[in-house]
Amino acid sequence: MDDIRALTFDVFGTVVDWRGSLIREGEMLGRKKGIEADWAAFADAWRGLYQPLMERVRAGQLPWTKLDELHRIGLDSILSRFELGDLDEHEIDELNRAWHRLDPWPDAVEGLKRLKRKYVLATLSNGNVALLVNMAKRAGLPWDAVLGAEVARAYKPQPEAYTRTAEFLGLKPEQCMMVAAHGGDLKAASECGFRTAFVARPLEHGPDKEGDAGGSGNWDAKAADFNDLAKQLGC
Amino acid sequence: MDDIRALTFDVFGTVVDWRGSLIREGEMLGRKKGIEADWAAFADAWRGLYQPLMERVRAGQLPWTKLDELHRIGLDSILSRFELGDLDEHEIDELNRAWHRLDPWPDAVEGLKRLKRKYVLATLSNGNVALLVNMAKRAGLPWDAVLGAEVARAYKPQPEAYTRTAEFLGLKPEQCMMVAAHGGDLKAASECGFRTAFVARPLEHGPDKEGDAGGSGNWDAKAADFNDLAKQLGC
Repeated sequence: MDDIRALTFDVFGTVVDWRGSLIREGEMLGRKKGIEADWAAFADAWRGLYQPLMERVRAGQLPWTKLDELHRIGLDSILSRFELGDLDEHEIDELNRAWHRLDPWPDAVEGLKRLKRKYVLATLSNGNVALLVNMAKRAGLPWDAVLGAEVARAYKPQPEAYTRTAEFLGLKPEQCMMVAAHGGDLKAASECGFRTAFVARPLEHGPDKEGDAGGSGNWDAKAADFNDLAKQLGC
Repeated sequence: MDDIRALTFDVFGTVVDWRGSLIREGEMLGRKKGIEADWAAFADAWRGLYQPLMERVRAGQLPWTKLDELHRIGLDSILSRFELGDLDEHEIDELNRAWHRLDPWPDAVEGLKRLKRKYVLATLSNGNVALLVNMAKRAGLPWDAVLGAEVARAYKPQPEAYTRTAEFLGLKPEQCMMVAAHGGDLKAASECGFRTAFVARPLEHGPDKEGDAGGSGNWDAKAADFNDLAKQLGC
């Protein structure tokens, strides 16, 4: 563990609460436009299209398409189902950018600041650069580098997403620790040689659903939140 | 000017004093190894190979090669001329990484912190990501994003270096302002639609030589240093 130089982070669900934030954005839009919708169902439906749309890129059915554009394809397909069919282009674009305005989990900013003293902190997210930069600017996330799918031109869990991120950082995979709340992400990173840290985010899918079951995996570290991870890593 | 959302920075010479820092690194190595050399001449000779080596990549004579590797090719070619022929592989690699340890100009960190309140700050440098991340970590440079040649796969002044950086930021070129101490860099950025700010760095090439003559160009802003630029941009 002493060789670790960089921590690479999954972002959606691990650093930020995408579901709670999308509900908040939906409620704000609803008050402004007089729309009553089930915003939790809206958030879940939109996020539900995330993996299928990325899979079309991974499978080569779509050319490289950044996540902002995949989010927009998904949003367009559910607008009418959630009484959003009358929004104009500007309003739809603003709603699509809700992903740029996701709120961090309560421990995230403080934990990252602690971890940053000892490690290079980089995103290793499927989010595109602009999304992640705007999110970080708003939320105060202190990244040293914004990397991941767009600069690697590969969506996790494709191995190139991990290996190219390590190469950009000038590090061997074993000098990088993937931090995620999802077992599948950690498994893919581990298969590329990364060290792994599972952070529990039991509320990712809302209070009535369970968090990712990946916590039972055999990872290098398991933490209750980012401050706990910082403590375990001696920060 | 109100449309500007991001400032994109040249780094070598504009943000950091490459020449003074390489002289410092040479002197430290000299003391440790008992080598007496003209470290200013060494710095100038090494930097003198920068453009010719990048030109080989731009011209397609070399495949894409990151700047760390070009620096190493250049260093290897001048080692014997500066009494460095007895260094071992580890020592040469450490010396090559002197570019990761360049010191900022005295106003740079404070000026960037002021500018960061209002703008997205991104590198648009020919340096590779690891070099720029390690430099920023050591010097406290508060970038929002580390972009430029390596992620764009094009060396300035090739237009793709500028246009792809704007695309990564999700911005139109005219929403980006290139900040540089070099007229050639600003001219190329301007031709891609970027706004331009010239920052004078009269000591870049040492006290006995003149700085870049680009200050006489017709740029959107001209500043004495980063604090002056922050003041002019209302930060």
